[in-house]
Amino acid sequence: MRPAAYASYSKRMPAPPMLTVRKVAPERGARLTELQRPEPGPDELLLRVRRAGICGSDKHLYLWDGWAAANFPTPVTLGHEIVGEVAELGPQVTDFQRGDLVAVESHLFDGACRPCRTGRAHVCENLRILGIDVSGGFADYVAVPRRVAWRVPSGMPLEHAVLFEPLGNAVHAAMRYDVSGQPVAVYGCGPMGLMAIAVARSAGAYPIVATDVAPYRRALAETLGAHAALDAASPRLGDEIVDALGCRPTVSLEMSGNQQALTQALQTSENGGKLVFLGIPPEPVTIDLAEHFMFKGLEAYGVTGRLIWDTWYRTEAFLLRHGAELAPMLTHRFPLANFEDAMQTVLTGECGKVLIDMDAQP
Amino acid sequence: MRPAAYASYSKRMPAPPMLTVRKVAPERGARLTELQRPEPGPDELLLRVRRAGICGSDKHLYLWDGWAAANFPTPVTLGHEIVGEVAELGPQVTDFQRGDLVAVESHLFDGACRPCRTGRAHVCENLRILGIDVSGGFADYVAVPRRVAWRVPSGMPLEHAVLFEPLGNAVHAAMRYDVSGQPVAVYGCGPMGLMAIAVARSAGAYPIVATDVAPYRRALAETLGAHAALDAASPRLGDEIVDALGCRPTVSLEMSGNQQALTQALQTSENGGKLVFLGIPPEPVTIDLAEHFMFKGLEAYGVTGRLIWDTWYRTEAFLLRHGAELAPMLTHRFPLANFEDAMQTVLTGECGKVLIDMDAQP
Amino acid sequence: MRPAAYASYSKRMPAPPMLTVRKVAPERGARLTELQRPEPGPDELLLRVRRAGICGSDKHLYLWDGWAAANFPTPVTLGHEIVGEVAELGPQVTDFQRGDLVAVESHLFDGACRPCRTGRAHVCENLRILGIDVSGGFADYVAVPRRVAWRVPSGMPLEHAVLFEPLGNAVHAAMRYDVSGQPVAVYGCGPMGLMAIAVARSAGAYPIVATDVAPYRRALAETLGAHAALDAASPRLGDEIVDALGCRPTVSLEMSGNQQALTQALQTSENGGKLVFLGIPPEPVTIDLAEHFMFKGLEAYGVTGRLIWDTWYRTEAFLLRHGAELAPMLTHRFPLANFEDAMQTVLTGECGKVLIDMDAQP
Amino acid sequence: MRPAAYASYSKRMPAPPMLTVRKVAPERGARLTELQRPEPGPDELLLRVRRAGICGSDKHLYLWDGWAAANFPTPVTLGHEIVGEVAELGPQVTDFQRGDLVAVESHLFDGACRPCRTGRAHVCENLRILGIDVSGGFADYVAVPRRVAWRVPSGMPLEHAVLFEPLGNAVHAAMRYDVSGQPVAVYGCGPMGLMAIAVARSAGAYPIVATDVAPYRRALAETLGAHAALDAASPRLGDEIVDALGCRPTVSLEMSGNQQALTQALQTSENGGKLVFLGIPPEPVTIDLAEHFMFKGLEAYGVTGRLIWDTWYRTEAFLLRHGAELAPMLTHRFPLANFEDAMQTVLTGECGKVLIDMDAQP
Repeated sequence: MRPAAYASYSKRMPAPPMLTVRKVAPERGARLTELQRPEPGPDELLLRVRRAGICGSDKHLYLWDGWAAANFPTPVTLGHEIVGEVAELGPQVTDFQRGDLVAVESHLFDGACRPCRTGRAHVCENLRILGIDVSGGFADYVAVPRRVAWRVPSGMPLEHAVLFEPLGNAVHAAMRYDVSGQPVAVYGCGPMGLMAIAVARSAGAYPIVATDVAPYRRALAETLGAHAALDAASPRLGDEIVDALGCRPTVSLEMSGNQQALTQALQTSENGGKLVFLGIPPEPVTIDLAEHFMFKGLEAYGVTGRLIWDTWYRTEAFLLRHGAELAPMLTHRFPLANFEDAMQTVLTGECGKVLIDMDAQP
Repeated sequence: MRPAAYASYSKRMPAPPMLTVRKVAPERGARLTELQRPEPGPDELLLRVRRAGICGSDKHLYLWDGWAAANFPTPVTLGHEIVGEVAELGPQVTDFQRGDLVAVESHLFDGACRPCRTGRAHVCENLRILGIDVSGGFADYVAVPRRVAWRVPSGMPLEHAVLFEPLGNAVHAAMRYDVSGQPVAVYGCGPMGLMAIAVARSAGAYPIVATDVAPYRRALAETLGAHAALDAASPRLGDEIVDALGCRPTVSLEMSGNQQALTQALQTSENGGKLVFLGIPPEPVTIDLAEHFMFKGLEAYGVTGRLIWDTWYRTEAFLLRHGAELAPMLTHRFPLANFEDAMQTVLTGECGKVLIDMDAQP
Repeated sequence: MRPAAYASYSKRMPAPPMLTVRKVAPERGARLTELQRPEPGPDELLLRVRRAGICGSDKHLYLWDGWAAANFPTPVTLGHEIVGEVAELGPQVTDFQRGDLVAVESHLFDGACRPCRTGRAHVCENLRILGIDVSGGFADYVAVPRRVAWRVPSGMPLEHAVLFEPLGNAVHAAMRYDVSGQPVAVYGCGPMGLMAIAVARSAGAYPIVATDVAPYRRALAETLGAHAALDAASPRLGDEIVDALGCRPTVSLEMSGNQQALTQALQTSENGGKLVFLGIPPEPVTIDLAEHFMFKGLEAYGVTGRLIWDTWYRTEAFLLRHGAELAPMLTHRFPLANFEDAMQTVLTGECGKVLIDMDAQP
Repeated sequence: MRPAAYASYSKRMPAPPMLTVRKVAPERGARLTELQRPEPGPDELLLRVRRAGICGSDKHLYLWDGWAAANFPTPVTLGHEIVGEVAELGPQVTDFQRGDLVAVESHLFDGACRPCRTGRAHVCENLRILGIDVSGGFADYVAVPRRVAWRVPSGMPLEHAVLFEPLGNAVHAAMRYDVSGQPVAVYGCGPMGLMAIAVARSAGAYPIVATDVAPYRRALAETLGAHAALDAASPRLGDEIVDALGCRPTVSLEMSGNQQALTQALQTSENGGKLVFLGIPPEPVTIDLAEHFMFKGLEAYGVTGRLIWDTWYRTEAFLLRHGAELAPMLTHRFPLANFEDAMQTVLTGECGKVLIDMDAQP
């Protein structure tokens, strides 16, 4: 069907080398490495990466903590929050062109299992994750299946388009239960918590109270739209949340992965309330299931990824209307060659979202 | 239990007369009438009315059109959108005090039927409506069952508190289906459509397109938050809606009661979309059920009243956060004695919400 | 990837002729016609048809009524309720083998539009329907896209497997709203209504009342599980439904497409109830939207097709557990060559589901 | 309003004594005690108890384990699963008569808090539970608020009517998520698990697999409708569940309160599945929230009580249609005077539901 293109594709010269950030061995750190540029498979797109975000899970992989060591293979090129330009197309791809700007769904689903066939592809039974299970986008180029490509609307700034993946997590979390006109608590004000605050606010949550131990992040939380940002270390936190909201929260978003925050969220929730868990606890957690969950008639939902593609449509709408409001959260950017500096910034915790900007100069 | 209070209550002098706006006979018009001030029943509150809104159904009752004549008894004091101050309490009421400010749920539900006992009291099988089936609040005083009283939060302006009832309709309509991050169309920009635009916007709808035949109302629609306001008489309306939204609407709010708008809403809806009907058609409507509803896999919901009390909590949150944004819609206010002027203003159509203000001077 | 297979596929001899039932011209009737056996496209399956069901829409196409004439092209081979055996595979199909038994989703969705990408492929914006828009399965062989093939579980009788498509409609309808422990009314006891009764019963609906004008069908309705089957022509039908259920129905399934039944369903529904429309009205309908829908706070859903693939999983579970209970509804079967007799049986109305059985002798 | 009745009510003689089963002190055991018959409050019903069920929480109270000691006051008359006959009415009760048969909602809700006012009265913020926080129905007579009385339909056997409360828990649990045509796992086959099996089956769950360590209970599980009943102690339990269902369960009902069963339920659930927790863990539980909940995209709901009154309507429908199927679960009955024997039977675990039958002879 596309014989000419295919011929030129299969006959061409070895691809030139490119820069990548790579986990080369099962140990702390990541290494700048030159690799050969990949070729797209028959149904793949080769993207020239333009912006990439550093995620909390990249931090775990860099530090190679127990969770990372137990779950992930090496070597692998990191990076799963990416926006890039189509540089080449596999021969079966008919609906994209070179130059198209593309954001990437990092959950590589098989499309064939029962979850995939009933609207839950984000928890595909054979899921592989870009930049974790297969090589990702902290690189000049990355090849991705066409089925995970999302066309970026024309005119959207790269700094917004690079947020589709992580913001999608926040949209998934904040829109899981109906927050419109409801009191909401957000536990944890890292980038994910900050985005959840902005999204919940855009969806009508009122009031919104946020908690974090870091004054830096509490200040960002108020900038992003929390009506109050409280010190998570306060011994009276539960009462302070209720005072700030005027009642207990109907919806609670746990974005920290912290055991104490989780317990607080369960205890403080309104009876019959809803909880969303997005922050990843590094260890198993302890829950007083009878007192803090069952007798309160709570419901809880675990967020991973984004609803494919329902969340993406909503995320695009959010970015088009509210994208500029996220600017205070975009605190740092680095060229790919300075990845080590970028990661050190992430490790300080004194930052919002840290971006790799392929157009920045070292 | 409250014997002393009850004694003084039952022994006191005949209540003084008060001014009311009354439908005295089954014919066009309404009459300013003096009546004796009512006494509250055992479980009732007597309210001193402070503000009252004129509703579209008051217009029907005033004009005494076919629908009104077929459905409603006379005589009756009109008025069902009211906020008042507790002036007296029946002896069984223990949780209110004189001076409390109260908004009123106009749907007097019995609490005993299957809908009432399963969370659908707004469509009670034995529903009576204040100001329609029983005497209402276009009056200096009105007695209402304690069960339909909503305590107004302290500090809320009377101009916001009087909106609980009609705004609650709009909240009910706009929050029935999940509009967060979704394209929405609103058909009809009377006060109800205008409030629905503001509510949908607050709940994250994006983009929002509104339609009306009147330039005056389209201008208000844009002020209230519609991203585009289109002429409902345009022969290319369907295409214009799709152009303005970038796609067909996922959620459509029919607020006009107009046959042509209803057909447009069905035709233009996205396949698998959701429709909310709030505008009341004066006659039975014709629908191409196969082509415009079934083959498109649509779902539709008929709004009457407000979810008791779920909608009220959300409406209060909206008023606290966004109440001031409704100011452009509050175009006129009149003292009770000038009710005739107020109704004539409503009949012109060149107005937003028209209020009766008990503190205004004739 | 499959070069050998592809080579043999593309070089082989012209396929032998086969028998089809075909709408050859825009007029009443259908004609037995010999056509060449189709070859599967790259991502298609060629099925040897084993059983096929006659649907209500086949009747409309046969009669060529106004609706059919206005909407459908000719020529086309009819038949969209089919089960067949894989006879040949296109070169891109890797997950089926010759001999596999396959039921077919008749809604050929594009997988690319917004409804398809958000879990609503059954109302794809570019939908084509097998046996209506493209040639179908009243034929010895039919080629279908691999994406619409459902693998029949081993051991399931062909008489059950042929029901996936129409039964899926009934499952879609009866499981749209939660009927468990709820009073349900089913209007119309043709094959679709009969299956809806059986499905609603299996999902815990109680009690179930059914209506039809035909005593033959009312008797089948009781056999299939209705607790009462009432004469739809009774002037006291509304009262009789309430008497039979002990209350008004919470969920109403309109399976007849009849204006009178539709009005009855709206009038008789519980306030706050749910309606599902599956029967296709031949003309636009008239609805007292204010009195019979909005003031009652009803919700309605239009059924077309089946949720892909959610409904299919549930339909398979129903067939495995309850398939044998549908036997009384399978009243007639004919060989393909006797299609005219089969259609005449359908036209009498004195039948349940009529099957084309490729193993039957003329 | 009822002056004559009230007069006779307030003037009558001290009520005669009655037998009760009472927790008299904070220690193991319960004591048969004579108390004066209570008088109904103004809005209460005095019931002559006819049947009462022994619940798992009665066992905890009897044994006075750590959970009971930490949470409950003494003295109190036990018993919260009751059906009785109206013996006397408080003066404000107008809609019941002497002789009416009544089942009792044991969750005494206040009707005034936010959960109560938004359809979640079962988790009222000021909940008191009959037979735990206030004296209950292991007694000849019990006084209950009119608002928690459910009129038993005429003709229903007492052995069915006494099940409203506990069966309502099972209905609440099994109907929380849509099980129609879905694979379901039930962990724990005590009376609550057994009822959940029967209810899930009635609502269309297919297949249903149940687990328990006790062969006696596994046998009952199969009688009540499980398609397979597996040994919960098997080291290959996860695989066996998948083998029995043909896939992983979409909905999982945890009815045991056992840590190991809880972990199994989380691990074995389908990705994107739903879990309902009803069994009460005696201690806080440990959960690998990241691996077993979040990355799987699960949702969980904690059941306490019944939805008031939605669950009751559905429970009544279940009892009317399927009540007789529960007979195998009603294994023992004792007169009130033999309560000690009844409790000893419960403690053996070799029983289904154990009833107190006020008509039985010691």
